[in-house]
Amino acid sequence: MARLVMKFGGTSVAGIPEIERAAQKVAAEVARGNQVAVAVSAMAGVTNQYVEYCRAISPLHDAREYDAVVASGENVTAGLMALALQKIGVSARSWQGWQIPIMTNEIHGKARIESIDVEELDKRLSANEVAVVAGFQGVTPRNRISTLGRGGSDTTAVALAAALKADRCDIYTDVNGVYTTDPRIVPEARKLSKVSHEEMLEMASLGAKVLMTRSVEMAMKMNVPVQVLSSFEDAIGSDFPGTLVLREDEILEQHVVNGVTYSRNEAKVTLLSVPDVPGIAAKVFGSLSVGHINVDMIVQNISADGKRTDVTFTLGRNDLPQALETLKKIPELDGCEIRSDDKVAKVSVVGIGMQSHAGVAQTMFQALAEKSINIQVISTSEIKISVLIDESYTELAIRALHSAYNLAEKA
Amino acid sequence: MARLVMKFGGTSVAGIPEIERAAQKVAAEVARGNQVAVAVSAMAGVTNQYVEYCRAISPLHDAREYDAVVASGENVTAGLMALALQKIGVSARSWQGWQIPIMTNEIHGKARIESIDVEELDKRLSANEVAVVAGFQGVTPRNRISTLGRGGSDTTAVALAAALKADRCDIYTDVNGVYTTDPRIVPEARKLSKVSHEEMLEMASLGAKVLMTRSVEMAMKMNVPVQVLSSFEDAIGSDFPGTLVLREDEILEQHVVNGVTYSRNEAKVTLLSVPDVPGIAAKVFGSLSVGHINVDMIVQNISADGKRTDVTFTLGRNDLPQALETLKKIPELDGCEIRSDDKVAKVSVVGIGMQSHAGVAQTMFQALAEKSINIQVISTSEIKISVLIDESYTELAIRALHSAYNLAEKA
Repeated sequence: MARLVMKFGGTSVAGIPEIERAAQKVAAEVARGNQVAVAVSAMAGVTNQYVEYCRAISPLHDAREYDAVVASGENVTAGLMALALQKIGVSARSWQGWQIPIMTNEIHGKARIESIDVEELDKRLSANEVAVVAGFQGVTPRNRISTLGRGGSDTTAVALAAALKADRCDIYTDVNGVYTTDPRIVPEARKLSKVSHEEMLEMASLGAKVLMTRSVEMAMKMNVPVQVLSSFEDAIGSDFPGTLVLREDEILEQHVVNGVTYSRNEAKVTLLSVPDVPGIAAKVFGSLSVGHINVDMIVQNISADGKRTDVTFTLGRNDLPQALETLKKIPELDGCEIRSDDKVAKVSVVGIGMQSHAGVAQTMFQALAEKSINIQVISTSEIKISVLIDESYTELAIRALHSAYNLAEKA
Repeated sequence: MARLVMKFGGTSVAGIPEIERAAQKVAAEVARGNQVAVAVSAMAGVTNQYVEYCRAISPLHDAREYDAVVASGENVTAGLMALALQKIGVSARSWQGWQIPIMTNEIHGKARIESIDVEELDKRLSANEVAVVAGFQGVTPRNRISTLGRGGSDTTAVALAAALKADRCDIYTDVNGVYTTDPRIVPEARKLSKVSHEEMLEMASLGAKVLMTRSVEMAMKMNVPVQVLSSFEDAIGSDFPGTLVLREDEILEQHVVNGVTYSRNEAKVTLLSVPDVPGIAAKVFGSLSVGHINVDMIVQNISADGKRTDVTFTLGRNDLPQALETLKKIPELDGCEIRSDDKVAKVSVVGIGMQSHAGVAQTMFQALAEKSINIQVISTSEIKISVLIDESYTELAIRALHSAYNLAEKA
């Protein structure tokens, strides 16, 4: 007997047949004697439609109303999943964020879960009722609906697993695991049977859409074992058909680089002729931070005359309009030219093994240079190297890097 | 300065342009110094889609989950309407049923509003904030979402108007008022400038889709003045461009018949060879009532031998599967044949003047006979006569009756 959280993403609940298929997977776990909580996303395309509606009204909208709108899709799926389970004889009920409640802070649009009251859920799971929880949403102390940001249902699932002390959190999606890169771009991409939290975190934050960054952070911090697996394949004869996300010390085989990831959700802002005085960066990035805009890569050129400098940084493409508004209001930037470009992509290589190997960056830059791909910005961490390039070169860059690091071959 | 509730139905909020148009109407009332609460339906087609999803999973589903699913559409519209109002400078926020809360009983799928806590709304209306309320939904004492039945947003609007002590409840829809019959079927149909609560009630309960029955009952009981008007026309120079629903004594002009209505949401059940003993009808209709199935017309034939009889009744088409299930389980009906037909329609003539005029029924039967339309069941009240006919004759019957009572001519 184990306690599981099973999460089904948008394509896994795209229509009634998919929801019924997912329900069968839940029923199979219940039949094995497991206690199950389910977290569901909105049906594929629904959340995008809602986001478009909000943007059509106004690009700069009240995030509280935006949340009330976009959280609705998950309510539909949660109810339908409960119905599908009941139909095949599994006791189940749906739970919306406010009904549990899943308490979040008040940063609407990208709220953080602060606590989950699992007393009632715990009781019902122990009585073999499946709890179907609407993902992506919570409720604030002011009783307003909040959402956790795109892909937030993963976070709901991991947070539930932690709160319910579940043995594992299985993330069902439209791929059967984590790959060395996107197989739609590189057909030889290889499925990883295990990946470390740290690598997964980099991959997620770098745009591999398998898991949301915050969910991996939470899994790492709460030590929740996570498995990514397919809701469209029936894995027979394998205990762990997907990719297990584990602590680094639980993984034996090691490639220097384990994956090539990319993100098109990028925009670049360049501030030209910024006064080169102490405090200006703090002012700029502080103002953006107040608006909850996350800045990613930052590059500042050395100023020739010591008076003016150029600063380039990247941020999420969706945040660009608000960021530009914010920057225009900073008096210290009067007289600076602000340029922006949202036709950029970030391509990264990730690997725990990188820490103990030299020449990894060199291989990357060489491979890109051979394809005449211009690098606009570079950033590195202990286990990843990222470059910002012209969006139109994305696939070319990914194929070149996958090949340069021999990722199609098993370690 | 007046306090208004403005309700926008599905076609009035079908897309972003329609929502923005509706927001303009709200803004115009605010600009006149009025305090406004808005009740909104789901965008046209959305609720039907959700109902189809639930039925696709199972025709006999858990009504609590059905409610959680189908109530979601209104949440989307409420948020979008608040955004559209904010964009044009009107202070507004959305309210879901549980946030107010709008308390209902636990009859999921057709719940009744028991109370509305308007303290906070009242405060905010007085501070000139528009309250945009998701229609059709409430919350039960067990904290689960309930819905008020199809067209329930009208009930939300009238109940809000009563609770907020509003001066009027304006129901914006895709027609500019209440007509003598459906203008899509009879092009000469005439708009009524005033109609009594009683007539409106009969028209609504008989299928005229302008207002939901329960909302008219509530308007009558709570004495809430209601106006039905178009959200697609800008009425210039008229205080009441739509149809006012008023007390009978406030209406001067009187036709004998004021409208011809119809309902295709009908099914007929015939129980053949029912034991003709006391208590059998109570047993049958009692069992249906326990399942919250409303029976409409009932006809019982006199039994020739005094031992067996035939009973025919009509009910909502959606309730037919559940009704047949219920009937099969009644031991007293063992040996009876149960026949059902859902290809029937109900056509009715309505008029307050009928009370003091003879020959109204005769005109109806004659008009139908001339078109060779067979009458299956007849029922009458003080101000209406209804007949059940083969569904395929619906339009023919309506045209014949509209003409027989000269409804195209003004009184």
